[in-house]
Amino acid sequence: MLILTTPINIKYFSGVELEAYERFAALLVCGYKKVFVVPKLEEGRVPGPAYTYSDGEDPAEALRRAVKECGGGDVEVDGGTTLRAWEIIRRALGGAATYRIADDYINGLRAVKRPDEVERISRAVKEIKEVIAEAYAELSPGVSERKAAADIYLRLVERGLKPGPILVQFGENTALPHQGPTERRLREGDVVIIDVTAAYEGYYGDITRTFAFRGEPAGFRELYTAVSEAQAAAIAAARPGVRAGDVDEAARSILRRRGLERYFVHRTGHGLGLEFHEAPNIAPGEGYALRGGNVFTVEPGVYVPGRFGIRIEDDVLVEEGGARVL
Amino acid sequence: MLILTTPINIKYFSGVELEAYERFAALLVCGYKKVFVVPKLEEGRVPGPAYTYSDGEDPAEALRRAVKECGGGDVEVDGGTTLRAWEIIRRALGGAATYRIADDYINGLRAVKRPDEVERISRAVKEIKEVIAEAYAELSPGVSERKAAADIYLRLVERGLKPGPILVQFGENTALPHQGPTERRLREGDVVIIDVTAAYEGYYGDITRTFAFRGEPAGFRELYTAVSEAQAAAIAAARPGVRAGDVDEAARSILRRRGLERYFVHRTGHGLGLEFHEAPNIAPGEGYALRGGNVFTVEPGVYVPGRFGIRIEDDVLVEEGGARVL
Repeated sequence: MLILTTPINIKYFSGVELEAYERFAALLVCGYKKVFVVPKLEEGRVPGPAYTYSDGEDPAEALRRAVKECGGGDVEVDGGTTLRAWEIIRRALGGAATYRIADDYINGLRAVKRPDEVERISRAVKEIKEVIAEAYAELSPGVSERKAAADIYLRLVERGLKPGPILVQFGENTALPHQGPTERRLREGDVVIIDVTAAYEGYYGDITRTFAFRGEPAGFRELYTAVSEAQAAAIAAARPGVRAGDVDEAARSILRRRGLERYFVHRTGHGLGLEFHEAPNIAPGEGYALRGGNVFTVEPGVYVPGRFGIRIEDDVLVEEGGARVL
Repeated sequence: MLILTTPINIKYFSGVELEAYERFAALLVCGYKKVFVVPKLEEGRVPGPAYTYSDGEDPAEALRRAVKECGGGDVEVDGGTTLRAWEIIRRALGGAATYRIADDYINGLRAVKRPDEVERISRAVKEIKEVIAEAYAELSPGVSERKAAADIYLRLVERGLKPGPILVQFGENTALPHQGPTERRLREGDVVIIDVTAAYEGYYGDITRTFAFRGEPAGFRELYTAVSEAQAAAIAAARPGVRAGDVDEAARSILRRRGLERYFVHRTGHGLGLEFHEAPNIAPGEGYALRGGNVFTVEPGVYVPGRFGIRIEDDVLVEEGGARVL
């Protein structure tokens, strides 16, 4: 019996988006049967009957009845279950309850996308690319990173997308791969990095583009070409059966040969879906063997401290013949 | 020995904002000593020495050394600790490890704000009020809720605030207290609710204003007056020693006397701080006795299905003599 308590996994297994906030909610998966335990207030969101409790009642009582309907058995949970939630599960099951964390199983399922999931991610990707193009076209000297990022946010919302992290970086700030938007203002000759994460119907796309704004700094073109080749090599390497670590190595080795490996300070990519960081992890040494249906980012970058950085990020779907850029 | 693993509580007890994402991080609090366990990548964020681990190493090893420095002892944890993190703690402590959830202690501390925390919340409140006034002045017929909400987002970001949930509702949508911005367009005679949550230096303010846009629907003025009086009664009731449930009842009884209680479908308020929902909970029956330094929202509302809703939300600080509106 699988007991899920995190909103994302409840959504993945049932399609239901709960807004229980600090209140306890769970989805029990027992064979083909799915049983909900939710606060009384959330009953309307759940298809079919659910075990409910009101404020002031112990959710463990409702959960005990749900467990009985499920037929009981060994308890598997998602690793994101809090100790607060586990105490409720333990009360429902009785004192000697034990759990097994089922993250490998859950993440393995979630890493292989169904066609409807791929469609949603593709739509997010398409919209994000258009938004980046529009936002870049609007840039003019003097605009701040913050203002440009807020403009992108607005464009995403107007298209019905849910914004995730948005990075806009100008000039020397592009060398700091995780720094959020600041008051730094755009100047001619700046390198510009725009990195946009946003969801369409719950599913995230994640795209990064690097530009040279009205003039290139010395070395920009060579580095851009190197990053672009590294990305192409990783995409070419990705196909069913290949290990995630080997996809990372395909990008890394291109940069290594050019003496740029020390400037590539992060992993090559990460899975996309209901979360913007999920399995598979495209990083050095990762043993996960790719499968058709995997969707992940391929985003090599080089960051020269004090000067500038370059990152190119696209999202790919693993198919039988290889990886297709979405 | 208190072992904290959630980013918010690590920040509260140390001022340090980690970005460990899915990686394990912890702050051990043992008397006046504070000991960090962080991924190697995060070492730069932590003041003074920390126990670190690299990707591929077991964080339990670093944690074991940190526990030794702390002197060991019974383990208290925050209830938001995941089972995934607890497994690491258990490995570090040895098989028979047990925990006690220390949420009452932690939330009790966090519910009483220091002057520097009050200052940050006050600043957030001031900025939000200005943004709502500006955004409302800009509204014109035909604008969508979504566009108006995105405009508010942009104004907050430009002022250096971190946006939380933003609700903009027009007309009949104001009767749905939790519905987010839609494509509904503004018309003359619409009721408008604007509810903005945003943080200044990590601390949230939360303000709601209700307007009648170029003309009032029948009954608007009477209901507005009733909600305003309910809010005033709750604020007047709040002072050290009074139970949170009695503050809720002060607002609720005003609406009850006017036959409006069935339209008041949520609690009167919630605490504000590093999170936009935290202790104290200003809800029916809550026994928490208010203390000087508590900061919470007072936000009664009435929602007439199919017609319109009204909510007025301000944030108050409990002081010796009573509650002061921020």
